[in-house]
Amino acid sequence: MNKLTAIVCLLTLLPLSGVAQDAARNGPKAPKVILIIGDGMDQHQITIARDYLAGYRGRLTLDTLPVRSNVQIQTVAEENPSLPEYVADSANTATSMATGIVTSAGRIATTAATDVDVPTIMEIAAAAGFGTGIVVTSSVTDATPASFVAHVSYRLCESPRSMSPDPANPNALSGDCPADLKTSGGKGSIAEQIAASRIDIVLGGGERYFAQVAEGEKRKTVRDLAVANGFRVIDKKEDLAGLKVGGKVLGLFAPSTMPVQWRGAGGAQAQRVQRDENGRVVLPEPFVCEPEPAFAPMPTLTAMAGAAIEHLDDGRSFMLMIESSSIDKQSHARRPCGQIGELKQLDETLKLVLEYAAAHPETLVLVTADHSQAAQLIPERSWLGPNAASPGHFARILTPEGAIMGVNYATNDSNLQEDHTGADVPLFAYGAAANEVPAAVRQSDIFGIMLRHLGLSAPAASQ
Amino acid sequence: MNKLTAIVCLLTLLPLSGVAQDAARNGPKAPKVILIIGDGMDQHQITIARDYLAGYRGRLTLDTLPVRSNVQIQTVAEENPSLPEYVADSANTATSMATGIVTSAGRIATTAATDVDVPTIMEIAAAAGFGTGIVVTSSVTDATPASFVAHVSYRLCESPRSMSPDPANPNALSGDCPADLKTSGGKGSIAEQIAASRIDIVLGGGERYFAQVAEGEKRKTVRDLAVANGFRVIDKKEDLAGLKVGGKVLGLFAPSTMPVQWRGAGGAQAQRVQRDENGRVVLPEPFVCEPEPAFAPMPTLTAMAGAAIEHLDDGRSFMLMIESSSIDKQSHARRPCGQIGELKQLDETLKLVLEYAAAHPETLVLVTADHSQAAQLIPERSWLGPNAASPGHFARILTPEGAIMGVNYATNDSNLQEDHTGADVPLFAYGAAANEVPAAVRQSDIFGIMLRHLGLSAPAASQ
Repeated sequence: MNKLTAIVCLLTLLPLSGVAQDAARNGPKAPKVILIIGDGMDQHQITIARDYLAGYRGRLTLDTLPVRSNVQIQTVAEENPSLPEYVADSANTATSMATGIVTSAGRIATTAATDVDVPTIMEIAAAAGFGTGIVVTSSVTDATPASFVAHVSYRLCESPRSMSPDPANPNALSGDCPADLKTSGGKGSIAEQIAASRIDIVLGGGERYFAQVAEGEKRKTVRDLAVANGFRVIDKKEDLAGLKVGGKVLGLFAPSTMPVQWRGAGGAQAQRVQRDENGRVVLPEPFVCEPEPAFAPMPTLTAMAGAAIEHLDDGRSFMLMIESSSIDKQSHARRPCGQIGELKQLDETLKLVLEYAAAHPETLVLVTADHSQAAQLIPERSWLGPNAASPGHFARILTPEGAIMGVNYATNDSNLQEDHTGADVPLFAYGAAANEVPAAVRQSDIFGIMLRHLGLSAPAASQ
Repeated sequence: MNKLTAIVCLLTLLPLSGVAQDAARNGPKAPKVILIIGDGMDQHQITIARDYLAGYRGRLTLDTLPVRSNVQIQTVAEENPSLPEYVADSANTATSMATGIVTSAGRIATTAATDVDVPTIMEIAAAAGFGTGIVVTSSVTDATPASFVAHVSYRLCESPRSMSPDPANPNALSGDCPADLKTSGGKGSIAEQIAASRIDIVLGGGERYFAQVAEGEKRKTVRDLAVANGFRVIDKKEDLAGLKVGGKVLGLFAPSTMPVQWRGAGGAQAQRVQRDENGRVVLPEPFVCEPEPAFAPMPTLTAMAGAAIEHLDDGRSFMLMIESSSIDKQSHARRPCGQIGELKQLDETLKLVLEYAAAHPETLVLVTADHSQAAQLIPERSWLGPNAASPGHFARILTPEGAIMGVNYATNDSNLQEDHTGADVPLFAYGAAANEVPAAVRQSDIFGIMLRHLGLSAPAASQ
């Protein structure tokens, strides 16, 4: 963001100290919020996962939640924020949930066009003396977690070296956030902002972003800054077992995105449908899902979430965001078993969270997605006959109940990856305050629902 | 169905007369159910329609309903009903809602493999002395309405001439229901079963099916049978205004499916994406929606629903099913404006129904879809750049708020039509009993929810 707005935003944060002393609470009635996000977890994703994991008559833990709502997703154009875009990304959607605003694709807790930083629920909660935590399976610098703790104009500004395109390597994926550089009066990259944050516990991938030398330093890495700011840095799943309450924790279990739990047998994924010499469709062979070997050294999402809850459960109120990040990424990559395994991780984590919430009734549990994704559950053989098949990438999954499920990816014909889609996503709620969740919300309303449950209010300037 | 099961089913219906006298109610507290089905109205369809009709910040009437639930759809294989199929059709899904069973694709209120007739909620309600009505924009013999009033082994057995393939015209679309012929001890075609039914009011398309000579008759048409059974047959929208309470009504406003309300400007619809000589995508021109000229002589769904409610509102309990049938059909045909216009018809009808229910608080209003459909809301330009685009059929819609919405159809590469998809669908509820609708149901549970609200119970043999 720019310097002028930096000052404005600093001012907007000042009233928080007043809010803090009123709202901070302790003891068994201290309100808590656990927000679980399935990145890209739309209704196709949930149905595909349920059919595989529980069968067509079965139920996921998700299906047991007592309140169901619908989320209308909103995105505006950066060039003209009075105009909508009808398909969102994970940055602007997480920003809506974390700050209550509607912004443009790619923005991390900043306003469209005007680039003003907007306080996040984690910052407001931390300023009020509450516990705060972030647990993800992506890099902790990825768009969703970043939007809860950092402010940059573009999501790819994850680390000091990605703040501007590299002249020596112009094709490398990079952000371009000159106004967010510390030398411009900004807060630096997402990793540097995490290192400087008050968040109590941050768990996920992204070690390589923290290994970079911080902006303006000669040798000190971003990790060094985090340690100087009181973070204990861990990097092995065994470290989670040894976590004691108290002290800030930064867990970085993979260089970037954590490996996923499942893959198609032998690495199988969706493929373009082939045809024989007579033009008839040769359907791809069905495959089952199997453990992804690269996942073995990883902590599960459930283990990370459990450690975070144990860490935060010190009698204070807390705000915890947990994301199963790779439902989206596996759908981009046309890997149905990857999606299913990551939704399984989310569902198992939800079970643990519900057990905690049942024992701590002041906990509001929300489960939602940020946007919808490409994967479609379609007939495993087209009803149009043997000459018709998906024009995109297609997989046939042999389910444990012995039937075949067709999964289609056809938002674009690129060899690289799929696009997002624009449908509304579900919102589930559990806990004493769950009945206050209306049947239809806009995504930015989720911010207000969480804030109200925590007994906090947003700084006036951000409303 | 076969003769043996016909006898079994006749026996299962006998206890209804006992139920009837207990449960029939009159007066202001008489419970009523209005079930509104959007055929194929999944979350993509709703979001696409909202973005066009109300804008990205707007709300549909659907969005104002106080209770939201999710419907798990179940289909079994005809050859082996212990195995699921993961994508449903309108026959087996409507059968689930109308009868509470799970059956195979194409079946109309009959069991998979064993072909047993199962009593429908309309039959149970009529036997109890309640009012009953069906209002659709398809032929009244189409799969959804048929499943509430008829029993045949295959949905295409709509009329006497479609009970078996025509040897003179073997490629014509036809059913094959030898066991349902009256000469086999069956009940005849769907049209003949409607003509013989106790339903108070049936409105929609399908005139040509009723114009056929009935099975076993020399000259009498199915329409003649309906008149002999007490139906007043109407065929013009002006006739709806003259409808008085009392007497059965059969309204047939089109030869088959009623024309839809909207189309793309000049007939525009989704098309295959073209490329220039350099392989770069040439995006299709954006278009707006406009009135479909063929719709002009048609009554709106709202007008039909209003007439049906007026007809049924005689103090008795009633069961009314209203379907916006062509959301599905227009999605099959890759016509986004057709979909949007038909969802608009549903939403306007819902407004009328909610006004009735507000004044008649014993009315339970349910709105749902039968299955999900092909249309996807995707970026109007692929995020992968100018060389990537939908591999299927694609439309760019210019919305009234001045932005462009991408709608994708890519379940198969046939020139004919799209396949269904398999995602869960939404369920909305309004009325005193709405809070009894759980946050997640199986589609067959909708039967029980409606039956309980009406104070009825299913014949033991059908449970």
